[in-house]
Amino acid sequence: MTIHAIAFDAYGTLFDVYSIGALAEKLFPENGKALAELWRAKQIEYSQLRTLCSTYKPFWEVTQDALIFACKKLQLDLSFDAQNSLMGQYAKLQPFPENLSVLQQLKDMDLKLAILSNGNPQMLDAVVKAAGMQGLFNHILSVDAVKKFKTAPEAYQLAPDVFGLSARNILFVSSNCWDACGATWFGYSTFWVNRSAAPLEELGVAPHAEGRSLTDLLDYVKTHR
Amino acid sequence: MTIHAIAFDAYGTLFDVYSIGALAEKLFPENGKALAELWRAKQIEYSQLRTLCSTYKPFWEVTQDALIFACKKLQLDLSFDAQNSLMGQYAKLQPFPENLSVLQQLKDMDLKLAILSNGNPQMLDAVVKAAGMQGLFNHILSVDAVKKFKTAPEAYQLAPDVFGLSARNILFVSSNCWDACGATWFGYSTFWVNRSAAPLEELGVAPHAEGRSLTDLLDYVKTHR
Repeated sequence: MTIHAIAFDAYGTLFDVYSIGALAEKLFPENGKALAELWRAKQIEYSQLRTLCSTYKPFWEVTQDALIFACKKLQLDLSFDAQNSLMGQYAKLQPFPENLSVLQQLKDMDLKLAILSNGNPQMLDAVVKAAGMQGLFNHILSVDAVKKFKTAPEAYQLAPDVFGLSARNILFVSSNCWDACGATWFGYSTFWVNRSAAPLEELGVAPHAEGRSLTDLLDYVKTHR
Repeated sequence: MTIHAIAFDAYGTLFDVYSIGALAEKLFPENGKALAELWRAKQIEYSQLRTLCSTYKPFWEVTQDALIFACKKLQLDLSFDAQNSLMGQYAKLQPFPENLSVLQQLKDMDLKLAILSNGNPQMLDAVVKAAGMQGLFNHILSVDAVKKFKTAPEAYQLAPDVFGLSARNILFVSSNCWDACGATWFGYSTFWVNRSAAPLEELGVAPHAEGRSLTDLLDYVKTHR
């Protein structure tokens, strides 16, 4: 396998979706962690359901729907102010601490880098800027171009198309095991950033490599060029 | 709206997927409820991912995969014996108490009845027989015929095809809100058996009617023929 380019998932991989937990905890004491987790789970579920049913809408709206549902389910009274605060923070989620340095080093190795995300262009631009990651990526690819969320093949096809490479020569990197598995099924070379030491999903497929952080990814790439 | 036929989801709607919790609790004290819930959530997630990625396999196998993952995630040591016991019980899940009587009354009203389920034919036959529901249904429809799980349109299309009716003249009944919403998007008349008084999913669509049990469904049907 020769890696010519790397496509990164954004939410959970570059940006910490659970970093919202601190604000959630402040707004809803003793419920911050549960809210952050259910919000994230529903966001993913809704994106997949909407793809199965051909009822796409932008990920920002899906994210807001998921927040509203999660609060109802947990019986938390979500004021309009609180909703705007949480969504506002989602727009500028914290990057994981090692990411900026690793991305710079990958770029310095003359690898082509992209984001390939469920996020719509506006929210991706905002979170990349807030993290100071402008200029690190050759392409910021949103599934909004095909109106289907991952793990639809049309979504994964965006990176091979823009790079002019076959999927196996692109390393797809995600912290979401379902995403890394979907990308493996699609044909990418894959690296699972298993940040929480979770068990592998039982899907009959496994990412080609695994690590705990983007630092492990860097080591892997150095030995697989 | 005139209802000529009713199509029932099976798992969660006719058969209690959480009735497995008692056996799970016996096998894994203090973890039975968590296991039953995660097992069910993963079963649904895997079915949707496999449909998005065109990697269908029978629901029985998906169910077993989900059980294995759920135990790993909860750090429960699943022996082969325990796995077989849990799967064996899944094959004969308990029906909800009101169901047999309600189904008989609907049949006596000359309504055509079907099951439309993610389950593969073998597991559906087994669970229907164990519940003594043979003879109540005109059709037992499995998505195995189209190799796509709900909420794929091809799966929902099975009942209109077999009944020779348009979807809006068929009442689709599910306790799973995502399933009732998917069926509504598809074009069915829909009834959500909201057994746990859950909030409506934030999907921008709502089932046409809602109740807490199949007894509520019976009342609804009597007034909508």
